[in-house]
Amino acid sequence: MTVSVIPIQGIGEVRPGDDLAGLILGVLPTNEVKLQDGDIVVVTHKVVSKAEGAVAAYSGEQEYRRLVEDESAAVIRRRGDLTISITRQGFICANAGVDRSNIQPGQAVLHPRNPDRSAHRIRMLLQQETEARIAVIVTDTFGRVWRKGLTDVAIGLSGMAAIRDYKGTVDTWDRPLAVTEVAVVDEIAAAADLAMGKAEGIPVAIVRGIEWEPADGRATDLVRSSGEDLFR
Amino acid sequence: MTVSVIPIQGIGEVRPGDDLAGLILGVLPTNEVKLQDGDIVVVTHKVVSKAEGAVAAYSGEQEYRRLVEDESAAVIRRRGDLTISITRQGFICANAGVDRSNIQPGQAVLHPRNPDRSAHRIRMLLQQETEARIAVIVTDTFGRVWRKGLTDVAIGLSGMAAIRDYKGTVDTWDRPLAVTEVAVVDEIAAAADLAMGKAEGIPVAIVRGIEWEPADGRATDLVRSSGEDLFR
Repeated sequence: MTVSVIPIQGIGEVRPGDDLAGLILGVLPTNEVKLQDGDIVVVTHKVVSKAEGAVAAYSGEQEYRRLVEDESAAVIRRRGDLTISITRQGFICANAGVDRSNIQPGQAVLHPRNPDRSAHRIRMLLQQETEARIAVIVTDTFGRVWRKGLTDVAIGLSGMAAIRDYKGTVDTWDRPLAVTEVAVVDEIAAAADLAMGKAEGIPVAIVRGIEWEPADGRATDLVRSSGEDLFR
Repeated sequence: MTVSVIPIQGIGEVRPGDDLAGLILGVLPTNEVKLQDGDIVVVTHKVVSKAEGAVAAYSGEQEYRRLVEDESAAVIRRRGDLTISITRQGFICANAGVDRSNIQPGQAVLHPRNPDRSAHRIRMLLQQETEARIAVIVTDTFGRVWRKGLTDVAIGLSGMAAIRDYKGTVDTWDRPLAVTEVAVVDEIAAAADLAMGKAEGIPVAIVRGIEWEPADGRATDLVRSSGEDLFR
Protein backbone atom coordinates (compact mmCIF):
# COMPACT_ATOMS: atom_id res chain seq x y z
CA MET A 1 0.00 0.00 0.00
CA THR A 2 1.21 3.51 -0.79
CA VAL A 3 2.24 5.45 2.30
CA SER A 4 1.40 9.17 2.26
CA VAL A 5 3.06 11.84 4.35
CA ILE A 6 0.78 14.87 4.46
CA PRO A 7 2.20 18.14 5.83
CA ILE A 8 -0.22 20.17 7.95
CA GLN A 9 0.25 23.88 7.33
CA GLY A 10 -0.96 27.03 9.00
CA ILE A 11 -0.42 26.26 12.68
CA GLY A 12 1.69 29.37 13.20
CA GLU A 13 3.56 30.32 16.33
CA VAL A 14 2.60 28.28 19.40
CA ARG A 15 2.55 29.91 22.84
CA PRO A 16 2.57 28.55 26.40
CA GLY A 17 -0.91 27.43 27.35
CA ASP A 18 -2.04 26.90 23.76
CA ASP A 19 -4.22 23.86 23.11
CA LEU A 20 -2.07 22.14 20.49
CA ALA A 21 -4.63 19.46 19.62
CA GLY A 22 -7.17 22.24 19.12
CA LEU A 23 -4.77 24.15 16.88
CA ILE A 24 -4.21 21.01 14.77
CA LEU A 25 -7.95 20.35 14.48
CA GLY A 26 -8.47 24.00 13.57
CA VAL A 27 -6.20 23.89 10.50
CA LEU A 28 -7.18 20.44 9.17
CA PRO A 29 -10.04 21.82 7.04
CA THR A 30 -7.81 24.37 5.24
CA ASN A 31 -5.39 21.48 4.60
CA GLU A 32 -8.32 19.49 3.20
CA VAL A 33 -7.51 16.64 5.56
CA LYS A 34 -9.81 14.61 7.78
CA LEU A 35 -8.30 12.28 10.36
CA GLN A 36 -8.98 8.64 9.48
CA ASP A 37 -8.61 5.36 11.33
CA GLY A 38 -4.97 4.32 11.08
CA ASP A 39 -3.54 7.82 10.68
CA ILE A 40 -0.37 8.58 12.58
CA VAL A 41 -0.10 12.22 13.62
CA VAL A 42 3.54 13.29 13.89
CA VAL A 43 4.31 16.46 15.83
CA THR A 44 7.73 18.06 16.29
CA HIS A 45 8.47 18.43 19.98
CA LYS A 46 9.15 22.13 19.54
CA VAL A 47 5.48 23.06 19.36
CA VAL A 48 4.62 20.55 22.09
CA SER A 49 7.20 22.09 24.41
CA LYS A 50 6.09 25.62 23.60
CA ALA A 51 2.44 24.79 24.29
CA GLU A 52 3.42 23.11 27.56
CA GLY A 53 5.70 25.98 28.57
CA ALA A 54 8.81 23.77 28.45
CA VAL A 55 10.94 26.74 27.43
CA ALA A 56 13.57 28.64 29.38
CA ALA A 57 15.10 32.08 29.21
CA TYR A 58 18.88 32.41 29.23
CA SER A 59 21.32 35.21 28.71
CA GLY A 60 24.68 34.45 27.19
CA GLU A 61 26.60 31.28 26.48
CA GLN A 62 27.34 30.44 30.10
CA GLU A 63 23.66 30.41 31.08
CA TYR A 64 22.90 28.32 28.01
CA ARG A 65 25.56 25.79 29.04
CA ARG A 66 24.03 25.69 32.54
CA LEU A 67 20.62 25.02 31.02
CA VAL A 68 22.09 22.07 29.13
CA GLU A 69 23.59 20.72 32.37
CA ASP A 70 20.25 21.15 34.16
CA GLU A 71 18.45 19.21 31.43
CA SER A 72 21.01 16.38 31.47
CA ALA A 73 20.53 13.33 33.66
CA ALA A 74 24.17 12.64 32.79
CA VAL A 75 26.75 13.96 30.36
CA ILE A 76 28.57 11.22 28.49
CA ARG A 77 30.93 13.22 26.24
CA ARG A 78 32.12 16.77 25.79
CA ARG A 79 34.08 18.16 22.87
CA GLY A 80 34.34 21.90 22.35
CA ASP A 81 30.85 23.35 22.25
CA LEU A 82 29.24 19.95 21.92
CA THR A 83 27.79 18.13 24.91
CA ILE A 84 26.34 14.64 24.47
CA SER A 85 23.83 14.08 27.26
CA ILE A 86 21.40 11.53 28.53
CA THR A 87 18.03 13.19 29.04
CA ARG A 88 15.65 12.44 31.90
CA GLN A 89 13.83 10.01 29.59
CA GLY A 90 17.10 8.23 28.81
CA PHE A 91 17.54 9.55 25.28
CA ILE A 92 21.09 10.31 24.24
CA CYS A 93 21.46 13.48 22.18
CA ALA A 94 23.37 16.72 21.75
CA ASN A 95 22.91 19.42 24.37
CA ALA A 96 20.20 17.44 26.19
CA GLY A 97 17.75 18.59 23.52
CA VAL A 98 18.02 22.26 24.52
CA ASP A 99 17.41 24.12 21.26
CA ARG A 100 17.83 27.79 20.48
CA SER A 101 16.48 27.93 16.94
CA ASN A 102 12.87 28.59 15.92
CA ILE A 103 12.20 30.43 19.17
CA GLN A 104 12.66 34.08 20.04
CA PRO A 105 16.21 35.15 20.94
CA GLY A 106 17.10 34.64 24.62
CA GLN A 107 14.79 31.64 24.87
CA ALA A 108 15.45 27.95 24.40
CA VAL A 109 13.07 25.07 23.83
CA LEU A 110 13.50 22.09 26.17
CA HIS A 111 12.13 18.59 25.75
CA PRO A 112 8.59 18.20 27.04
CA ARG A 113 8.71 17.02 30.66
CA ASN A 114 7.23 13.68 29.63
CA PRO A 115 6.96 13.36 25.85
CA ASP A 116 5.10 10.02 25.97
CA ARG A 117 2.46 11.66 28.16
CA SER A 118 2.34 14.66 25.81
CA ALA A 119 1.71 12.32 22.87
CA HIS A 120 -0.99 10.54 24.87
CA ARG A 121 -2.76 13.79 25.74
CA ILE A 122 -2.73 14.97 22.12
CA ARG A 123 -4.02 11.60 20.96
CA MET A 124 -6.88 11.60 23.48
CA LEU A 125 -7.98 15.08 22.46
CA LEU A 126 -7.75 14.36 18.72
CA GLN A 127 -9.61 11.06 19.09
CA GLN A 128 -12.30 12.65 21.21
CA GLU A 129 -13.09 15.18 18.51
CA THR A 130 -12.71 12.98 15.44
CA GLU A 131 -13.50 9.45 16.67
CA ALA A 132 -10.65 8.22 14.47
CA ARG A 133 -8.35 5.55 15.90
CA ILE A 134 -4.96 7.20 15.54
CA ALA A 135 -1.44 7.14 16.97
CA VAL A 136 0.65 10.19 17.88
CA ILE A 137 4.43 10.54 17.67
CA VAL A 138 6.41 13.47 19.09
CA THR A 139 9.77 13.94 17.34
CA ASP A 140 13.14 15.57 17.75
CA THR A 141 16.15 15.75 15.44
CA PHE A 142 19.10 13.65 16.68
CA GLY A 143 22.61 12.96 15.44
CA ARG A 144 24.03 9.48 15.05
CA VAL A 145 27.29 8.10 16.36
CA TRP A 146 28.57 6.60 13.12
CA ARG A 147 26.78 8.47 10.40
CA LYS A 148 26.97 12.13 9.52
CA GLY A 149 23.87 14.26 9.44
CA LEU A 150 20.78 14.24 11.61
CA THR A 151 17.46 12.47 11.30
CA ASP A 152 14.16 12.87 13.08
CA VAL A 153 13.34 10.23 15.70
CA ALA A 154 10.48 9.57 18.12
CA ILE A 155 10.82 10.96 21.65
CA GLY A 156 7.13 10.60 22.52
CA LEU A 157 4.57 8.02 21.46
CA SER A 158 0.98 7.02 22.10
CA GLY A 159 -1.28 4.43 20.51
CA MET A 160 1.07 1.94 18.86
CA ALA A 161 4.18 -0.11 19.58
CA ALA A 162 7.56 1.61 19.14
CA ILE A 163 9.08 -1.53 17.66
CA ARG A 164 7.67 -3.86 15.04
CA ASP A 165 8.80 -7.35 15.93
CA TYR A 166 9.11 -9.84 13.08
CA LYS A 167 10.07 -12.65 15.45
CA GLY A 168 8.43 -15.86 14.27
CA THR A 169 8.18 -14.52 10.73
CA VAL A 170 9.89 -16.60 8.07
CA ASP A 171 11.25 -15.69 4.67
CA THR A 172 10.49 -17.35 1.33
CA TRP A 173 12.74 -20.27 2.35
CA ASP A 174 11.03 -20.69 5.71
CA ARG A 175 14.07 -19.31 7.50
CA PRO A 176 13.49 -16.94 10.41
CA LEU A 177 14.07 -13.30 9.42
CA ALA A 178 17.40 -11.95 10.65
CA VAL A 179 15.87 -8.53 11.15
CA THR A 180 13.33 -9.02 13.89
CA GLU A 181 12.96 -5.63 15.53
CA VAL A 182 12.31 -2.60 13.36
CA ALA A 183 12.12 0.80 15.08
CA VAL A 184 9.05 1.64 13.06
CA VAL A 185 8.21 4.85 14.94
CA ASP A 186 11.66 6.24 14.17
CA GLU A 187 11.11 5.40 10.50
CA ILE A 188 7.76 7.20 10.68
CA ALA A 189 9.43 10.22 12.35
CA ALA A 190 12.01 10.30 9.55
CA ALA A 191 9.34 10.00 6.87
CA ALA A 192 7.35 12.85 8.44
CA ASP A 193 10.40 15.12 8.39
CA LEU A 194 10.58 14.71 4.61
CA ALA A 195 7.25 16.52 4.27
CA MET A 196 7.88 19.06 7.05
CA GLY A 197 11.27 20.43 6.06
CA LYS A 198 13.32 22.33 8.59
CA ALA A 199 13.04 25.87 7.33
CA GLU A 200 9.40 25.82 6.28
CA GLY A 201 8.24 25.61 9.88
CA ILE A 202 5.63 22.91 9.35
CA PRO A 203 5.41 21.21 12.76
CA VAL A 204 2.81 18.52 12.03
CA ALA A 205 2.42 15.80 9.41
CA ILE A 206 0.02 12.91 9.03
CA VAL A 207 1.42 9.56 7.93
CA ARG A 208 -1.24 7.43 6.29
CA GLY A 209 -1.20 3.94 4.82
CA ILE A 210 0.83 2.01 7.40
CA GLU A 211 -0.69 -1.06 8.99
CA TRP A 212 -0.37 -1.09 12.78
CA GLU A 213 -2.17 -2.53 15.76
CA PRO A 214 -3.27 -0.40 18.71
CA ALA A 215 -0.78 -0.88 21.56
CA ASP A 216 0.45 0.88 24.65
CA GLY A 217 3.90 1.71 23.26
CA ARG A 218 6.21 4.41 24.52
CA ALA A 219 9.15 6.13 22.85
CA THR A 220 11.17 5.25 25.93
CA ASP A 221 10.86 1.61 24.83
CA LEU A 222 13.57 2.56 22.33
CA VAL A 223 16.08 3.48 25.03
CA ARG A 224 18.93 0.97 25.14
CA SER A 225 20.04 0.30 28.69
CA SER A 226 23.65 1.05 29.49
CA GLY A 227 24.22 -2.67 30.04
CA GLU A 228 23.20 -3.41 26.46
CA ASP A 229 25.23 -0.53 25.06
CA LEU A 230 28.61 -1.67 23.73
CA PHE A 231 29.82 1.89 23.11
CA ARG A 232 29.13 4.07 26.12
CA MET B 1 3.73 18.89 -0.58
CA THR B 2 2.53 15.39 0.22
CA VAL B 3 5.26 12.79 -0.01
CA SER B 4 4.21 9.40 -1.41
CA VAL B 5 6.01 6.12 -0.88
CA ILE B 6 4.88 3.68 -3.55
CA PRO B 7 5.82 0.00 -3.16
CA ILE B 8 6.77 -1.76 -6.39
CA GLN B 9 5.50 -5.32 -6.37
CA GLY B 10 6.09 -8.39 -8.50
CA ILE B 11 9.87 -8.34 -8.92
CA GLY B 12 10.20 -11.88 -7.60
CA GLU B 13 13.43 -13.72 -6.89
CA VAL B 14 16.52 -12.06 -8.35
CA ARG B 15 19.42 -14.19 -9.64
CA PRO B 16 23.08 -13.46 -10.42
CA GLY B 17 23.33 -11.78 -13.79
CA ASP B 18 19.77 -10.44 -13.74
CA ASP B 19 19.28 -6.93 -15.11
CA LEU B 20 17.72 -5.32 -12.05
CA ALA B 21 16.84 -2.04 -13.78
CA GLY B 22 15.13 -4.08 -16.49
CA LEU B 23 13.21 -6.07 -13.88
CA ILE B 24 12.03 -2.83 -12.25
CA LEU B 25 10.98 -1.33 -15.58
CA GLY B 26 9.19 -4.59 -16.40
CA VAL B 27 6.90 -4.47 -13.36
CA LEU B 28 6.14 -0.73 -13.33
CA PRO B 29 3.10 -1.08 -15.65
CA THR B 30 1.41 -3.70 -13.46
CA ASN B 31 2.04 -1.35 -10.51
CA GLU B 32 0.42 1.42 -12.55
CA VAL B 33 3.47 3.60 -11.98
CA LYS B 34 5.44 5.69 -14.47
CA LEU B 35 8.75 7.19 -13.42
CA GLN B 36 8.55 10.98 -13.21
CA ASP B 37 11.11 13.75 -12.86
CA GLY B 38 11.99 14.00 -9.18
CA ASP B 39 11.22 10.40 -8.28
CA ILE B 40 13.63 8.67 -5.95
CA VAL B 41 13.89 4.92 -6.58
CA VAL B 42 14.81 3.07 -3.41
CA VAL B 43 16.15 -0.47 -3.77
CA THR B 44 17.10 -2.83 -0.92
CA HIS B 45 20.69 -3.96 -1.35
CA LYS B 46 19.64 -7.57 -1.19
CA VAL B 47 18.34 -7.65 -4.75
CA VAL B 48 21.25 -5.50 -5.94
CA SER B 49 23.75 -7.92 -4.42
CA LYS B 50 21.94 -10.95 -5.81
CA ALA B 51 21.85 -9.46 -9.32
CA GLU B 52 25.56 -8.60 -9.06
CA GLY B 53 26.44 -12.03 -7.66
CA ALA B 54 27.59 -10.56 -4.34
CA VAL B 55 26.52 -13.71 -2.52
CA ALA B 56 28.61 -16.44 -0.90
CA ALA B 57 28.07 -20.05 0.02
CA TYR B 58 28.98 -21.20 3.52
CA SER B 59 28.50 -24.33 5.52
CA GLY B 60 28.05 -24.07 9.26
CA GLU B 61 28.57 -21.33 11.80
CA GLN B 62 32.35 -21.27 11.56
CA GLU B 63 32.37 -20.61 7.85
CA TYR B 64 29.72 -17.92 8.34
CA ARG B 65 31.92 -16.23 10.97
CA ARG B 66 34.86 -16.38 8.54
CA LEU B 67 32.69 -14.74 5.87
CA VAL B 68 31.93 -11.91 8.29
CA GLU B 69 35.65 -11.46 9.00
CA ASP B 70 36.40 -11.44 5.26
CA GLU B 71 33.80 -8.74 4.67
CA SER B 72 35.10 -6.58 7.54
CA ALA B 73 37.71 -3.90 6.94
CA ALA B 74 37.93 -3.88 10.74
CA VAL B 75 36.01 -5.31 13.68
CA ILE B 76 35.30 -2.77 16.37
CA ARG B 77 33.33 -4.83 18.92
CA ARG B 78 32.43 -8.44 19.59
CA ARG B 79 29.87 -9.73 22.05
CA GLY B 80 28.65 -13.30 21.83
CA ASP B 81 27.38 -13.91 18.32
CA LEU B 82 27.38 -10.24 17.45
CA THR B 83 30.24 -8.66 15.52
CA ILE B 84 30.20 -4.92 14.85
CA SER B 85 32.33 -4.29 11.78
CA ILE B 86 33.47 -1.51 9.54
CA THR B 87 32.74 -2.47 5.95
CA ARG B 88 35.02 -1.69 2.99
CA GLN B 89 32.90 1.41 2.34
CA GLY B 90 33.37 2.55 5.94
CA PHE B 91 29.86 1.76 7.16
CA ILE B 92 29.62 0.42 10.69
CA CYS B 93 27.08 -2.36 11.10
CA ALA B 94 26.44 -5.82 12.50
CA ASN B 95 28.22 -8.76 10.87
CA ALA B 96 29.67 -6.55 8.12
CA GLY B 97 26.30 -6.70 6.38
CA VAL B 98 26.52 -10.46 5.75
CA ASP B 99 22.88 -11.56 5.80
CA ARG B 100 21.46 -15.08 5.81
CA SER B 101 17.74 -14.36 5.51
CA ASN B 102 15.75 -14.03 2.29
CA ILE B 103 18.25 -16.19 0.43
CA GLN B 104 18.37 -19.95 0.02
CA PRO B 105 19.89 -21.90 2.95
CA GLY B 106 23.68 -22.20 2.80
CA GLN B 107 24.00 -18.86 1.04
CA ALA B 108 24.52 -15.36 2.40
CA VAL B 109 24.02 -11.97 0.80
CA LEU B 110 26.96 -9.58 1.02
CA HIS B 111 26.99 -5.85 0.42
CA PRO B 112 27.40 -4.90 -3.24
CA ARG B 113 31.13 -4.40 -3.96
CA ASN B 114 30.50 -0.68 -4.51
CA PRO B 115 26.93 0.30 -3.63
CA ASP B 116 27.31 3.89 -4.88
CA ARG B 117 28.37 2.54 -8.26
CA SER B 118 25.46 0.06 -8.19
CA ALA B 119 23.05 2.93 -7.58
CA HIS B 120 24.64 4.89 -10.39
CA ARG B 121 24.32 2.01 -12.83
CA ILE B 122 20.65 1.45 -11.98
CA ARG B 123 19.97 5.18 -12.32
CA MET B 124 21.64 5.39 -15.73
CA LEU B 125 19.64 2.42 -17.04
CA LEU B 126 16.33 3.69 -15.64
CA GLN B 127 16.92 7.21 -16.95
CA GLN B 128 17.92 5.90 -20.36
CA GLU B 129 14.61 4.09 -20.74
CA THR B 130 12.29 6.61 -19.14
CA GLU B 131 14.02 9.99 -19.66
CA ALA B 132 12.92 10.92 -16.14
CA ARG B 133 15.42 12.76 -13.95
CA ILE B 134 15.58 10.50 -10.90
CA ALA B 135 17.81 9.57 -7.98
CA VAL B 136 18.53 6.03 -6.77
CA ILE B 137 19.20 4.90 -3.20
CA VAL B 138 20.40 1.41 -2.22
CA THR B 139 19.48 0.52 1.36
CA ASP B 140 20.36 -1.85 4.18
CA THR B 141 18.90 -2.29 7.66
CA PHE B 142 21.26 -1.12 10.42
CA GLY B 143 21.10 -1.01 14.20
CA ARG B 144 21.86 2.10 16.23
CA VAL B 145 24.20 2.50 19.16
CA TRP B 146 21.79 4.20 21.54
CA ARG B 147 18.38 3.23 20.33
CA LYS B 148 16.79 -0.19 20.15
CA GLY B 149 15.48 -1.56 16.91
CA LEU B 150 16.76 -1.22 13.38
CA THR B 151 16.02 1.26 10.61
CA ASP B 152 16.80 1.31 6.92
CA VAL B 153 19.63 3.58 5.82
CA ALA B 154 21.34 4.43 2.55
CA ILE B 155 24.46 2.46 1.63
CA GLY B 156 24.42 3.46 -2.05
CA LEU B 157 23.35 6.68 -3.76
CA SER B 158 23.29 8.33 -7.16
CA GLY B 159 21.81 11.56 -8.42
CA MET B 160 21.34 13.72 -5.32
CA ALA B 161 23.26 14.89 -2.24
CA ALA B 162 23.31 12.60 0.79
CA ILE B 163 22.97 15.50 3.18
CA ARG B 164 20.67 18.49 2.97
CA ASP B 165 22.54 21.46 4.36
CA TYR B 166 20.49 24.26 5.87
CA LYS B 167 23.58 26.36 6.55
CA GLY B 168 22.74 29.98 5.85
CA THR B 169 19.04 29.31 6.43
CA VAL B 170 17.41 31.38 9.16
CA ASP B 171 14.36 30.75 11.28
CA THR B 172 11.37 33.06 11.81
CA TRP B 173 13.51 35.21 14.11
CA ASP B 174 16.35 35.45 11.58
CA ARG B 175 18.50 33.17 13.72
CA PRO B 176 20.59 30.54 11.94
CA LEU B 177 19.03 27.09 12.18
CA ALA B 178 20.69 24.87 14.76
CA VAL B 179 20.06 21.84 12.59
CA THR B 180 22.11 22.42 9.50
CA GLU B 181 22.83 18.96 8.12
CA VAL B 182 19.96 16.54 7.63
CA ALA B 183 20.80 13.04 6.40
CA VAL B 184 17.93 13.22 3.95
CA VAL B 185 18.81 10.00 2.09
CA ASP B 186 18.64 8.04 5.35
CA GLU B 187 15.22 9.58 6.00
CA ILE B 188 14.16 8.54 2.51
CA ALA B 189 15.50 5.00 3.10
CA ALA B 190 13.49 4.81 6.34
CA ALA B 191 10.35 6.11 4.63
CA ALA B 192 10.72 3.55 1.84
CA ASP B 193 10.95 0.72 4.35
CA LEU B 194 7.51 1.68 5.68
CA ALA B 195 5.98 0.72 2.34
CA MET B 196 8.19 -2.31 1.71
CA GLY B 197 7.81 -4.22 4.95
CA LYS B 198 10.30 -6.91 5.85
CA ALA B 199 8.28 -10.05 5.37
CA GLU B 200 6.40 -9.03 2.24
CA GLY B 201 9.54 -9.17 0.14
CA ILE B 202 8.97 -5.89 -1.71
CA PRO B 203 12.50 -4.78 -2.62
CA VAL B 204 11.74 -1.51 -4.42
CA ALA B 205 9.76 1.63 -3.58
CA ILE B 206 9.43 4.98 -5.27
CA VAL B 207 9.48 8.08 -3.09
CA ARG B 208 7.72 10.98 -4.79
CA GLY B 209 7.11 14.58 -3.75
CA ILE B 210 10.46 15.57 -2.26
CA GLU B 211 12.27 18.60 -3.66
CA TRP B 212 15.91 17.95 -4.42
CA GLU B 213 18.60 19.22 -6.75
CA PRO B 214 20.64 16.93 -8.98
CA ALA B 215 24.06 16.39 -7.37
CA ASP B 216 26.89 13.91 -7.39
CA GLY B 217 26.25 12.60 -3.86
CA ARG B 218 27.43 9.29 -2.48
CA ALA B 219 26.23 7.28 0.48
CA THR B 220 29.83 7.17 1.67
CA ASP B 221 29.50 10.93 2.28
CA LEU B 222 27.61 9.83 5.40
CA VAL B 223 30.59 7.96 6.85
CA ARG B 224 31.94 9.74 9.91
CA SER B 225 35.71 9.55 10.05
CA SER B 226 37.22 7.90 13.12
CA GLY B 227 38.70 11.27 14.08
CA GLU B 228 35.22 12.80 14.29
CA ASP B 229 33.79 9.81 16.13
CA LEU B 230 33.60 10.39 19.90
CA PHE B 231 32.57 6.82 20.63
CA ARG B 232 34.76 4.38 18.72
